[in-house]
Amino acid sequence: MSEREHGVSATDGVTTARPGAGPPAAAGTTRDWSAETLRDALDRTSRWLLGYRERVGSLPVLPRTAPGEIRAALPARAPRDPEPFERVLEDFERLIVPGLTHWNHPGFLAYFASATRGPSVAAELMIAAVGVNAMLWRTSPAATELELVVVDWLREALGLPEGLRGVILDTASTSSFTALLAARERAGERVRETGLAGGPPLAVYVSDQAHSSLEKAAIAGGLGRAAVRRIPTDRGFRMDVDALARAIADDRSRGVRPALIGATAGTTSTASVDPVAPIARVAEDTGAWLHVDAAYAGSAALLPELRDRFEGWERADSIVVNPHKWLGTSLDCSVLFFRDPAPFREALALTPAYLASEDGEVVNLMDFGLPLGRRFRALKLWVLFRCVGVDGLAASLREDIELARRFANRIERHPRFRLLAPPSFSTVCFRAEPGAAPATDEVADALNRRVLERVNRRGRVFLSHTELDGRYVLRLSIGSVHTRPTHVEEALAELDAAVEAELGSPGGPGE
Amino acid sequence: MSEREHGVSATDGVTTARPGAGPPAAAGTTRDWSAETLRDALDRTSRWLLGYRERVGSLPVLPRTAPGEIRAALPARAPRDPEPFERVLEDFERLIVPGLTHWNHPGFLAYFASATRGPSVAAELMIAAVGVNAMLWRTSPAATELELVVVDWLREALGLPEGLRGVILDTASTSSFTALLAARERAGERVRETGLAGGPPLAVYVSDQAHSSLEKAAIAGGLGRAAVRRIPTDRGFRMDVDALARAIADDRSRGVRPALIGATAGTTSTASVDPVAPIARVAEDTGAWLHVDAAYAGSAALLPELRDRFEGWERADSIVVNPHKWLGTSLDCSVLFFRDPAPFREALALTPAYLASEDGEVVNLMDFGLPLGRRFRALKLWVLFRCVGVDGLAASLREDIELARRFANRIERHPRFRLLAPPSFSTVCFRAEPGAAPATDEVADALNRRVLERVNRRGRVFLSHTELDGRYVLRLSIGSVHTRPTHVEEALAELDAAVEAELGSPGGPGE
Repeated sequence: MSEREHGVSATDGVTTARPGAGPPAAAGTTRDWSAETLRDALDRTSRWLLGYRERVGSLPVLPRTAPGEIRAALPARAPRDPEPFERVLEDFERLIVPGLTHWNHPGFLAYFASATRGPSVAAELMIAAVGVNAMLWRTSPAATELELVVVDWLREALGLPEGLRGVILDTASTSSFTALLAARERAGERVRETGLAGGPPLAVYVSDQAHSSLEKAAIAGGLGRAAVRRIPTDRGFRMDVDALARAIADDRSRGVRPALIGATAGTTSTASVDPVAPIARVAEDTGAWLHVDAAYAGSAALLPELRDRFEGWERADSIVVNPHKWLGTSLDCSVLFFRDPAPFREALALTPAYLASEDGEVVNLMDFGLPLGRRFRALKLWVLFRCVGVDGLAASLREDIELARRFANRIERHPRFRLLAPPSFSTVCFRAEPGAAPATDEVADALNRRVLERVNRRGRVFLSHTELDGRYVLRLSIGSVHTRPTHVEEALAELDAAVEAELGSPGGPGE
Repeated sequence: MSEREHGVSATDGVTTARPGAGPPAAAGTTRDWSAETLRDALDRTSRWLLGYRERVGSLPVLPRTAPGEIRAALPARAPRDPEPFERVLEDFERLIVPGLTHWNHPGFLAYFASATRGPSVAAELMIAAVGVNAMLWRTSPAATELELVVVDWLREALGLPEGLRGVILDTASTSSFTALLAARERAGERVRETGLAGGPPLAVYVSDQAHSSLEKAAIAGGLGRAAVRRIPTDRGFRMDVDALARAIADDRSRGVRPALIGATAGTTSTASVDPVAPIARVAEDTGAWLHVDAAYAGSAALLPELRDRFEGWERADSIVVNPHKWLGTSLDCSVLFFRDPAPFREALALTPAYLASEDGEVVNLMDFGLPLGRRFRALKLWVLFRCVGVDGLAASLREDIELARRFANRIERHPRFRLLAPPSFSTVCFRAEPGAAPATDEVADALNRRVLERVNRRGRVFLSHTELDGRYVLRLSIGSVHTRPTHVEEALAELDAAVEAELGSPGGPGE
């Protein structure tokens, strides 16, 4: 065994590093950390994690770091010798954490939240424990079958029909891209084999409020950005279905085939919901694939009282819902539901000899996405559903929606702010108003930019912005399990102080 | 606060579930598990994990489960009420784990290994602890900057030149696809804007031994499967460079543009290495993008004594190396190196208003891939490098290579087996021989199929197979930090017993 007596032992991780000399590794021992070392590292990390979750609310949500600062604080080369984990955790705390944007901060009210519930933290450790790759049924039958089960649990909980099945991918961008590949296969002519170069032009239809992901998908899928038709929206930021029908008719008259209509249930700016049922009719009439982007708001279909907002989505060819957005699994966990597995397999299944198996009729989930390697993400949804329960999840969503409604009410009555769109789900768009004197749009935009900048710089809450009808708009969205009424109060107080600093006192906030 | 007094509390996770009634949530309390509950869950999971790692070697590598069995054992619907984590962990142990293929089993010698080192387990918990999304610099500056740093550490450790930078994606399939998008942009005409439909046909060149991922990428990218030229290989399974040059010349004479040449350093079947330097010359002469798939073997460039096997890869436009394959990070961690960031941004950057930031000149990593959401994968590489050290990683690789060499020697001298290709890195291809009587290829293939089936059914080791020159071939690859000399001995004993059961005793093994 002399060839295995190398000079470095990676097993002395908790003692100080020894430059190039360690005990010879005996046959049968592990070359990895000892169980003791791993136990100690997990204990330390767990304690750190619990402390972090306790104090994260007192940290600035957005870090105060200049571009390049953290990079400059780190060595240019990897160490040659092992260091104790303790030291790495200290450096994490000292060098890395102060440079993080804290997605689990209760004042994180920007974008759409992606906060991690306790059960999902435990699930991540379970995933790391077994470390399986669910590319083929054979490479971990339980991972494949649990994925089918929990996706079906989610489908049922959302009130979607039995005909839909699904897979878990990383993000909504990937899910929508995957749907586009299936749609492209159905609309085109043997796209899988011959590509797009010789074929008919294809088009994708989304509203002018849709997320950029389908545009990025159209680029990646070789349709090109120009193939994306941005259909105008009504005053409620919902797709104009007549305009959609006209755009498709227009395209068809020119030999362009409608490949996919992307309807959004919960747009990124205002959380508006496209009229999915009439859009479904257009899709059925024209043969276009209907994909529903419900990455954020889809979770709200857990609530029977909101289910009518999703009317028509059950007729879609595919739907994306991200449990890592509003249900509280950690990033990444995006569920792509679809009606017909055939076009996905037609577009994506490729089984080289070294992966061929003789397991007979099994589902190999790598056939429903681009990556072969697949983490055991199903555990996140399984542990979440079991430890929180469908009713517990629903209760959280109701609370977030109620918090957003109350915030919107306060904004509506505030002399310096104006609601820009009706609050939808847990998302509110609003704007500071320059005051009595008439102001140009540019002046008003600049004011809002400065207000947001002030609020975010102080670090108690983090809000984001968007653009509506060409105007700079402030935006608050509640979706973190950690956010409590006090944090929304704090957001109001911060906004109030910021607008007062910009404009002077108007006589107090609206309530 | 009365609107927040819902009937279900998700905080009583460790007590038994209460149907629809819990204490009202007071303002300021968390709606998540209490710190106590999370601490208990992490303790339990850590203990479970340590026990699992201790005993995994005594479990069958491949589970004994029939398709559908696990699914049938699970309820059809998610529970309405929360359950204690303890019960979930029990079910995990009882229902799920017996259905797993154990990628961390020391007898996992199939495909390419993807075993998780202790430091990477700890890193996964750190990732879950902070749960950040590194899509924009702003959404977690430290996650973006640490990613740039550790990718550069890896570059330097592999002896790659300073001009290369990179990002961490999920898998090699995604990395290669992303490279293809950049190559497609460079080769085509405004592909991003106008797509492929009106443009010139593009082609991709890989050897007949290349992984299916570039074929899948060509399909997904809209080039089509027919755009992939499978260039023949020599007797060492290396791409025939003259045939490559001819194929490109032939395509160009017909107006087809060479978009990308995919060279492989460590093919999936035999771990052969294409002649990258002469291929680089062809790429430079023809303007094609050179992508090197070194997902598995690239890690071996840590060893100075093996670095000449990679000669020429420093001239590539892009290279993929998967630390989750041979370095011991958990799935998923795939590093895509590239020379020029411009074509990636040209192909993929899209910044909608709601993500626009005023941070100035920063790197937003979402511009180098399809997904927006990005986990903090950099932590895995950082913790790995620090807790193992470059020399520690190198030592592990050397041991794996030496183990494979010794296995190959034993196979070579075995009366019933034949080496089919020289062992390369830590991968060995071999075949059982039917014996003295002349046998058809079909008979020999069937014998090998049965031998593999016998070995894998017994569950002590898991080997896979491939096809070489149309023949069914057995394959062993060593890349798990948990695999020790005894496990390779065990593989030999299992193979020996299986071939003896099929053919009768020949007079003992070769040593």
